[in-house]
Amino acid sequence: MTTRILPESLLVDRVGVLVTNDPRLGPGPLGPVTDAAVVVEGGRVAWVGPSAHAPAADVRVDAAGRCLVPGFVDSHSHVVFAGDRGREFAARMNGEPYRAGGIHATVAATRAATDAELRANAVRLLREARAQGTTTLEVKTGYGLTVADEERSARIAARLTDEVTFLGAHVVPPEYADDPAGYVDLVTGPMLAACAPHARWIDVFCERGAFDADAARAVLTAGRSGGLLARVHGNQLGPGPGVRLAVELGAASVDHCTHLDAADVAALADSASAGGTVATLLLGVEFSTRQPYPDARALLDAGAVVALAGDCNPGSCFTSSIALCIALAVREMRMSPDEALWAATAGGAAALRRADIGHLGVGARADMLLLDAPDPVYLAYRPGVPQTAAVWKDGDLVAGDPG
Amino acid sequence: MTTRILPESLLVDRVGVLVTNDPRLGPGPLGPVTDAAVVVEGGRVAWVGPSAHAPAADVRVDAAGRCLVPGFVDSHSHVVFAGDRGREFAARMNGEPYRAGGIHATVAATRAATDAELRANAVRLLREARAQGTTTLEVKTGYGLTVADEERSARIAARLTDEVTFLGAHVVPPEYADDPAGYVDLVTGPMLAACAPHARWIDVFCERGAFDADAARAVLTAGRSGGLLARVHGNQLGPGPGVRLAVELGAASVDHCTHLDAADVAALADSASAGGTVATLLLGVEFSTRQPYPDARALLDAGAVVALAGDCNPGSCFTSSIALCIALAVREMRMSPDEALWAATAGGAAALRRADIGHLGVGARADMLLLDAPDPVYLAYRPGVPQTAAVWKDGDLVAGDPG
Ligand SMILES: [Zn+2]
Ligand SMILES: [Zn+2]
Repeated sequence: MTTRILPESLLVDRVGVLVTNDPRLGPGPLGPVTDAAVVVEGGRVAWVGPSAHAPAADVRVDAAGRCLVPGFVDSHSHVVFAGDRGREFAARMNGEPYRAGGIHATVAATRAATDAELRANAVRLLREARAQGTTTLEVKTGYGLTVADEERSARIAARLTDEVTFLGAHVVPPEYADDPAGYVDLVTGPMLAACAPHARWIDVFCERGAFDADAARAVLTAGRSGGLLARVHGNQLGPGPGVRLAVELGAASVDHCTHLDAADVAALADSASAGGTVATLLLGVEFSTRQPYPDARALLDAGAVVALAGDCNPGSCFTSSIALCIALAVREMRMSPDEALWAATAGGAAALRRADIGHLGVGARADMLLLDAPDPVYLAYRPGVPQTAAVWKDGDLVAGDPG
Repeated sequence: MTTRILPESLLVDRVGVLVTNDPRLGPGPLGPVTDAAVVVEGGRVAWVGPSAHAPAADVRVDAAGRCLVPGFVDSHSHVVFAGDRGREFAARMNGEPYRAGGIHATVAATRAATDAELRANAVRLLREARAQGTTTLEVKTGYGLTVADEERSARIAARLTDEVTFLGAHVVPPEYADDPAGYVDLVTGPMLAACAPHARWIDVFCERGAFDADAARAVLTAGRSGGLLARVHGNQLGPGPGVRLAVELGAASVDHCTHLDAADVAALADSASAGGTVATLLLGVEFSTRQPYPDARALLDAGAVVALAGDCNPGSCFTSSIALCIALAVREMRMSPDEALWAATAGGAAALRRADIGHLGVGARADMLLLDAPDPVYLAYRPGVPQTAAVWKDGDLVAGDPG
């Protein structure tokens, strides 16, 4: 006879505003409940309702009027890397143009690093993100660009997250400069075979200077044959085929979307009604490269599903702050504070095709961010200010102190 | 015979980059020293030099290659207030124009609050700022606007900071709407007399809709007669006489400077060579009100002294993040990362006419910020990311943990 250990239940009580992202629980897409409580059992949300009717639980946290929101779902990061590019950033801010070639410095440093160094850096960035409220972080390979270095990047990422993306097709490495087709063969052949066991996703940087539409299609198609789901980097540096390719292939997300034409916007909007491709905006990149921001309003007004993600990487955007992305989305892209929070939580979950995260309806994973603030608008109202009181993942306290 | 208690000495060792803001100690205005150490005695910097030659001290902190900079000098805040304006911010971001009238909501809430409530809110914001590296915070009155409410605001501020500013001339309160001259008489008479004992500075909001040049001159002149030094809010919402009045009266700073003409820039540049009026840019305001940023390059290129400050207040800018101001200054005003850091430290000190803060030369107050980063460019390179490892004020650890 075995003894079953019952999971401890947790009650977060006296929540001033609870953002559920469940429109059945409150008005509008955020489904807010005021003077609310949440009960967690077995790592999942078991009950949501008014604080006055909250059931008892083993552990009670008094939110004391503060705001509880779903943990941020950051569906785009590149945190498995080595090397420092602070000086390159300084040079760019002192007037030099952005040179995508800087990525090769990261590739060289990543190849030269030990597994332990790569893992330590990724863990540090994951913890930093978690301390700011990110409870799900997608992590890409893409700085190894050999079979062995991509495989170990994927393996290291898989110890950190369920959302690992194989991005061998990040850029053509220098040793294949004269044979880009040969590199695509490597990516779609032995590199894919080595990485697929660690990954859920296949991704390609479909952009002038990286991979064209034919190469990108070959990469994504091979990835799907290898059991991976598709996502795309597209339309960052200029107009291009990335968005339409993503929609055509049923990719879960196309990321950047900085340069879209009317047909791209229409394709994303049509796809939304079919539960297809999310437009993921990475506006930290535009912030850190002094480029114009994507046209989020055109996407939202057409009906596309928009996600906000961080794109934490050492070259074009070294932030892990989703709160800043929300503030920038409001300031620079005229998203409403509600739209921006939804995009950074439920939007990220859609971009990862996850129904269990990005909301706090009953049954959702108890991935929760308690803010040191009475209302979710404070994420945009107080830009740059750390406002994390506590973070739970699967019901476990992983950062902060709820007091 | 008395026993003299010797102050404990502190050695911060193995600093990767030490920003001294002392051009005698290293190249350029930041005077950086690499592989450096700092010794603190009696709350002051006693020794600066290469780590290899550092003397012993009672307490040793290993910076382990991280970067040490002067604590931020935030020369402009309004943290003595009550009430919540998050909904007003949300409405503005959802498309309503900025209405300066929102300030009256804060005035009403401030008047209705107890001393303890006002103090608790101000302490909370001061601690929040300190945890982000701000070691000097100027604090203004200006939400009381009666003799009693301004006096208690100044008294509360004086328990938090040496840099208290009497800003009875923030806006004409509703009860004086038909008699603005009567309000100026109140400010320059009994209100000044009540507040001057708690304050170092007199300030006036010289702007259309607030106080015109004649009223501003009367306020500043009266303040100086009462023993206070002058500073000015000017040229925020449109062109105006604020900058030239500030320079003419020898004010330490004119703050906002969003709308300047060539003569304003020239007046500030001329003043700089005479050690006069600093141009303090509060670009969190432009961020949070979606207004165009000041032309920092015109000021810097003309030779004016530029400071960056936070303007933490519940209406137009509710951030306490000087790191974000630095990142925005680089992104949006094309200040170099070095110029922005200097402006947020030495620039703030100049705006407060303080020689003892804003730098880490020998004799300076040991107000220091240890960054979780190898180089000061990380303040702009990693926007929104909390990077405070430890903060010392007068040599005392006041936030973080140097490890
Ligand atoms: Zn990316
Ligand atoms: Zn102000």
